[in-house]
Amino acid sequence: MTQPENGFQPERRKILVGGAATAALLVPGVGSAQSGDMEAIRKAVTAGYGASVKRIQDWIANPTIAAEKLNVDGGADYMMRLAKEAGFQRVKKVRTDGVPGVFATLDAGAKRWMGIYFMYDVKQFDPAEWSSPPLEGRIIDKPGYGKVIVGRGATNQKGPQAAFLAALHAFRASGRKLPVNIALVAEGEEEIASPHFMQIVQDPEVLATMKKCVGVIIPSSGQGQNGAATISLGAKGAVELELVSSGEKWGRGPVRDIHSSLMARVDSPAWHLVQALNSLVQKDGHTPAVEGWFEHVKPLTAREKALIAENARLSSEANAKKALGVQRWINDEDWQTSLERLASQPTINIQGLVGGYTGPGGKTILPSRAAAKIDLRLVPDMTKEDSVRKLKAHLAKHGFGDIEVNVSGGYGPTQTPEDSALIRAEQAVLTRAGVSYSLSPRSAGSWPGVVFTGAPLRLPAGQFGLGTGGGAHAPDEFFVIESSNPKVAGLTGATMAYVDFLYEIARAR
Amino acid sequence: MTQPENGFQPERRKILVGGAATAALLVPGVGSAQSGDMEAIRKAVTAGYGASVKRIQDWIANPTIAAEKLNVDGGADYMMRLAKEAGFQRVKKVRTDGVPGVFATLDAGAKRWMGIYFMYDVKQFDPAEWSSPPLEGRIIDKPGYGKVIVGRGATNQKGPQAAFLAALHAFRASGRKLPVNIALVAEGEEEIASPHFMQIVQDPEVLATMKKCVGVIIPSSGQGQNGAATISLGAKGAVELELVSSGEKWGRGPVRDIHSSLMARVDSPAWHLVQALNSLVQKDGHTPAVEGWFEHVKPLTAREKALIAENARLSSEANAKKALGVQRWINDEDWQTSLERLASQPTINIQGLVGGYTGPGGKTILPSRAAAKIDLRLVPDMTKEDSVRKLKAHLAKHGFGDIEVNVSGGYGPTQTPEDSALIRAEQAVLTRAGVSYSLSPRSAGSWPGVVFTGAPLRLPAGQFGLGTGGGAHAPDEFFVIESSNPKVAGLTGATMAYVDFLYEIARAR
Repeated sequence: MTQPENGFQPERRKILVGGAATAALLVPGVGSAQSGDMEAIRKAVTAGYGASVKRIQDWIANPTIAAEKLNVDGGADYMMRLAKEAGFQRVKKVRTDGVPGVFATLDAGAKRWMGIYFMYDVKQFDPAEWSSPPLEGRIIDKPGYGKVIVGRGATNQKGPQAAFLAALHAFRASGRKLPVNIALVAEGEEEIASPHFMQIVQDPEVLATMKKCVGVIIPSSGQGQNGAATISLGAKGAVELELVSSGEKWGRGPVRDIHSSLMARVDSPAWHLVQALNSLVQKDGHTPAVEGWFEHVKPLTAREKALIAENARLSSEANAKKALGVQRWINDEDWQTSLERLASQPTINIQGLVGGYTGPGGKTILPSRAAAKIDLRLVPDMTKEDSVRKLKAHLAKHGFGDIEVNVSGGYGPTQTPEDSALIRAEQAVLTRAGVSYSLSPRSAGSWPGVVFTGAPLRLPAGQFGLGTGGGAHAPDEFFVIESSNPKVAGLTGATMAYVDFLYEIARAR
Repeated sequence: MTQPENGFQPERRKILVGGAATAALLVPGVGSAQSGDMEAIRKAVTAGYGASVKRIQDWIANPTIAAEKLNVDGGADYMMRLAKEAGFQRVKKVRTDGVPGVFATLDAGAKRWMGIYFMYDVKQFDPAEWSSPPLEGRIIDKPGYGKVIVGRGATNQKGPQAAFLAALHAFRASGRKLPVNIALVAEGEEEIASPHFMQIVQDPEVLATMKKCVGVIIPSSGQGQNGAATISLGAKGAVELELVSSGEKWGRGPVRDIHSSLMARVDSPAWHLVQALNSLVQKDGHTPAVEGWFEHVKPLTAREKALIAENARLSSEANAKKALGVQRWINDEDWQTSLERLASQPTINIQGLVGGYTGPGGKTILPSRAAAKIDLRLVPDMTKEDSVRKLKAHLAKHGFGDIEVNVSGGYGPTQTPEDSALIRAEQAVLTRAGVSYSLSPRSAGSWPGVVFTGAPLRLPAGQFGLGTGGGAHAPDEFFVIESSNPKVAGLTGATMAYVDFLYEIARAR
């Protein structure tokens, strides 16, 4: 879920809040560490480049797909091995009711702990749609980008995560002491909405260690093709669920598909589903109509609105519409309003409808079952539990209490204060690297940051990293290792940014 | 469409209107022909039994499937060959905008013409679901039935149609003159709701010949497992269509699937479809809510209600519910009311819902397109054209004018007077054969009889035949060739019933 699909980052800000593209790009300054240390580490990063590339390729060759229960324990074991090789002294598998997690600590004897979140699973893929085998990690020249690794998980999230691991390898290879201790928590179910991630964090040892952390980042390729980066201060929550109407549960209609002529005297689970769905949104076709849905929705603050207004001013509505294949926003609203909606509005989306006969042409049946695949996007201060409870209460109240609400995963929204040490450190690193960046009040895409930013940890958390990639969840996913654009980091630049970041976190007030 | 699926014939009447199960079963009496003629023909039918069985098997081995455009011309050519071999002197292919039809005449120099309707296409099938190859026509002993041919099309309608052809072969083999001339009109698109059948009948030569006919039958295996038969005086019309909501046609929402987080600011074609569908039925979840839908709906007559009441009294509601897997009728109505609904109510049924992601689990997309597969069932005096027009007008009026209404086939209801020569002849044949039968005002299943009973022909028309079978549209479809129940005709009995029927038509006043 972390990486929205292609065409989905129109909210990529171009606002220069603190950074400026300069010739000093990706050469971290002396503010963060002794320049001698940085130089030594840079040499080690360069020396380790080949091993680092191979680490990404080997990881791509070892995919875990939670939806298919593919390589579940193997993927966790592989994650453990990667952690051990990067210097983590304690590495353990954390059992859950689903796919196991991995917890690891690298205690460098430093004063502070920094939390790192990894996902070791990837999205499903169909090799027929790829121009090179999705598990090969082939290196190609991609026009407009440079040398890239093509493979499932390349940018979401194995490439960026491997860049972070490369930083740890470089510290050790150069004989430099890590300025902070690292606590790594990894899950293998991110792509199915992290249904058991909280179980991993609630492991007593994990919880006790995470409590000591300054904050948590998930490594990500945070630059756009033009070099600009966005620091998202938060992300919407997401809940995935299926609504299922069936004659069996309803006690009306058929328990198996019957001839469609019987519609004259037998109730239809498909019509029942349509009517239930129809009750979930208002007449406008998008505003949630579930009782109490907006009870805990916080309006945008003045600061959040100002950030959005600035972004609206500097970015191109026409380009965004073209990239998305969209002619009009909801209600024919203007660009800025559409961006405010994106940051502030909770949604109930139909991902898919599937019921009865779905093949070519028709088939004269009255289906016994119909389902809608739904995702909810939640904004502060909504929670997953409260939202699911309200949805069920709404269905029951309106005569649809028989409809199953099968939640497959999800989590609430995450939000981190702009003035937290984590966000300030990120800004400092980007500024020193000469990367123009903007602050986004909230990403409309989702990641399970709430596990860190919510109770009981209440830590700052966010995605962070230089470099770029694309095609997450799509064919020909890629991660740039040698950038043809001087404003965009390749693998070495991305690795060095993490080195600088760790020094910055150590210094943070 | 002709043969409803298994479990769908609860309306099979057991009322003894004119027949009586007797030991004389399937021995037509002398009222219909000189007994010497009947005896000679029966000998020929018996002698031709092996060829007749093989004719069914060979036909099954040569399937035409209109939905897949499978063996379209080959199937028509095969139909032509079957007609020639049965003695039709003039046989021609009738081109349409879809699958071609076949027209054939057998002019015996008789005073009267009888129309026969054949379908040479069959329903799709999945060999994996069958216990013997669906195109083999294997003969097995089926408990409770006797010797049966198993194959796609066995009972729907190749078996019964071959029984009719066997009657023509027997007339010729025995040197007996056909008492009526035969006009055969065949189509290869019955299973996709006969979208071009009217084109076949409107061929000038076809129309001129059909106008001379006393009436039209489609051969069918009209007996239940217990031997009872139903004469349906009519059938509902059926229209198959897809309602498609797409960002492209709408001008709102995306033109291709986009990330689901964009639901916050982009309209959703899937919600649009849900709202459009919701407007089509009333709050009860079944009564059509399309403006003017009931404008031409004729209430049941006193005679029709009496026939239904009698059937309700004599048949088992519990058995029907069990066979259908249904616990309750609409509105918890009683048995008789459910039967009245079945005969009298027009319906809008959802056959299938398909939109966006339909695989396992979820996928975070906002789909650009969603569709509902719909069938309409029409009662007198509704027409296909008027109903589709009203549906489109309703959608436009309620803000859904962009939703495509893709009609793939269909036709209006068919009805034949109880006192027509055709129905009286059928009753006479059943009575002589000792088959208990009932009159049904209207079958809820559909067949394109309106092409004959409607303008311009306005002929009596109906399904007719002895014998039994099952599994139409389902795996292991079968047709009984040697019945283990003396009350049920096998292939020979079914053939002889057509012989008697032709004599009866010749005598009809």
